[in-house]
Amino acid sequence: MIDLYTWTTPNGRKVSVMLEECGLPYEAHAVDISKGAQFEPDFVKIAPNSKIPAIVDRETGVSLFESGAILVYLAEKTGKFLPKEGEGRAKVLEWLFWQMANIGPMMGQANHFANVAPEKIPYAIDRYMGETARLLKVMDDQLGRTDFLAGDYSIADMATYPWVSVGFEMIKSLKGDIVGDGNNVSRWLAANAARPAVERGMKVPVVS
Amino acid sequence: MIDLYTWTTPNGRKVSVMLEECGLPYEAHAVDISKGAQFEPDFVKIAPNSKIPAIVDRETGVSLFESGAILVYLAEKTGKFLPKEGEGRAKVLEWLFWQMANIGPMMGQANHFANVAPEKIPYAIDRYMGETARLLKVMDDQLGRTDFLAGDYSIADMATYPWVSVGFEMIKSLKGDIVGDGNNVSRWLAANAARPAVERGMKVPVVS
Ligand SMILES: N[C@@H](CCC(=O)N[C@@H](CS)C(=O)NCC(=O)O)C(=O)O
Ligand SMILES: N[C@@H](CCC(=O)N[C@@H](CS)C(=O)NCC(=O)O)C(=O)O
Repeated sequence: MIDLYTWTTPNGRKVSVMLEECGLPYEAHAVDISKGAQFEPDFVKIAPNSKIPAIVDRETGVSLFESGAILVYLAEKTGKFLPKEGEGRAKVLEWLFWQMANIGPMMGQANHFANVAPEKIPYAIDRYMGETARLLKVMDDQLGRTDFLAGDYSIADMATYPWVSVGFEMIKSLKGDIVGDGNNVSRWLAANAARPAVERGMKVPVVS
Repeated sequence: MIDLYTWTTPNGRKVSVMLEECGLPYEAHAVDISKGAQFEPDFVKIAPNSKIPAIVDRETGVSLFESGAILVYLAEKTGKFLPKEGEGRAKVLEWLFWQMANIGPMMGQANHFANVAPEKIPYAIDRYMGETARLLKVMDDQLGRTDFLAGDYSIADMATYPWVSVGFEMIKSLKGDIVGDGNNVSRWLAANAARPAVERGMKVPVVS
């Protein structure tokens, strides 16, 4: 049994999608980051960076934060969605780290400056919308060469889908000159959305 | 033999440090990102995100970008600096992803707004200096519990040292109220700097 500490945001959904894909039994605990629950001492003990998601594996006692590390842990636990060796493994980790270090932080900053910051700062909005558009173009080119980011469907796709599914149409409409038609990303979004486990995972946690 | 495509910046140094630590034979190729060499078609073929570092392993033909993925690849190739299983492995990956998704992007943005952007935007400077300071406090607390980030010296330290060694004193002097005394980080910086392989790796690539 896995305890999943999560919220209704992209980084949390990566993990609920993976748990659904693997059919691992889990219990989701909502950590309301809009009310500061990520700073409560019991949560900080398992997630010292004060961000969701985090897990505790009741079987092994291991606790973990950082969605990328959790995805690798679950993939190695189940033997699924991450090849055990060779070039296939290297490519999945490459695109997983690419999501973690690029798509996540840059779309996060774009969202902050467009929707959250108390002042509208054109330089910052343009910087992060532009960088996100450049990343989506990199992704579209890659998906012109392979069905999923690293060949077969993998944890790299699970990490990227919850982010790109929320931001793609908006960025494409603002920065079409950089993104291009994005047809490969559109095809990939549909292929992810069609998976029943993705549909279920994207609804976690249920918040009243 | 490993071909390493790199520059005189923190993300490149992570990999030269690891190659030195493992004693793997490698050839460093300077990619001058100040002159746009990261956009040359031959480089983009192995690094479609147009950023250094990237490697080609001549033995296997595998090419890879994203420093975190490269570190895991080299650790699994040599059996060094990343435990093969269990909680020890999970913790190294946790702090490696933490560096990749937090310290790297946030210190990068702090540097951009403080030193590179054509206008000084107080809100953005403060946002990224403040977040970096918060991350250094998380790190200092962790290093109060363990010698290195994930217990023994590992690829998580190699990923973090090139960044924190350049930014720590400056952020501490600006945001001492958030960082605190940072004594554990100082101790850890000295322990990393004392390693001969770190000293050698931090000088790569040689640029005339
Ligand atoms: N790199 C981290 C990022 C986690 C993250 O940014 N989580 C957000 C929600 S999607 C959060 O908890 N924010 C609360 C806060 O920053 O205080 C991961 O992938 O796990
Ligand atoms: N997440 C990437 C980041 C790589 C990165 O940002 N590299 C910088 C130098 S430290 C670069 O190549 N910048 C050139 C550019 O952005 O055009 C990694 O860790 O490999």
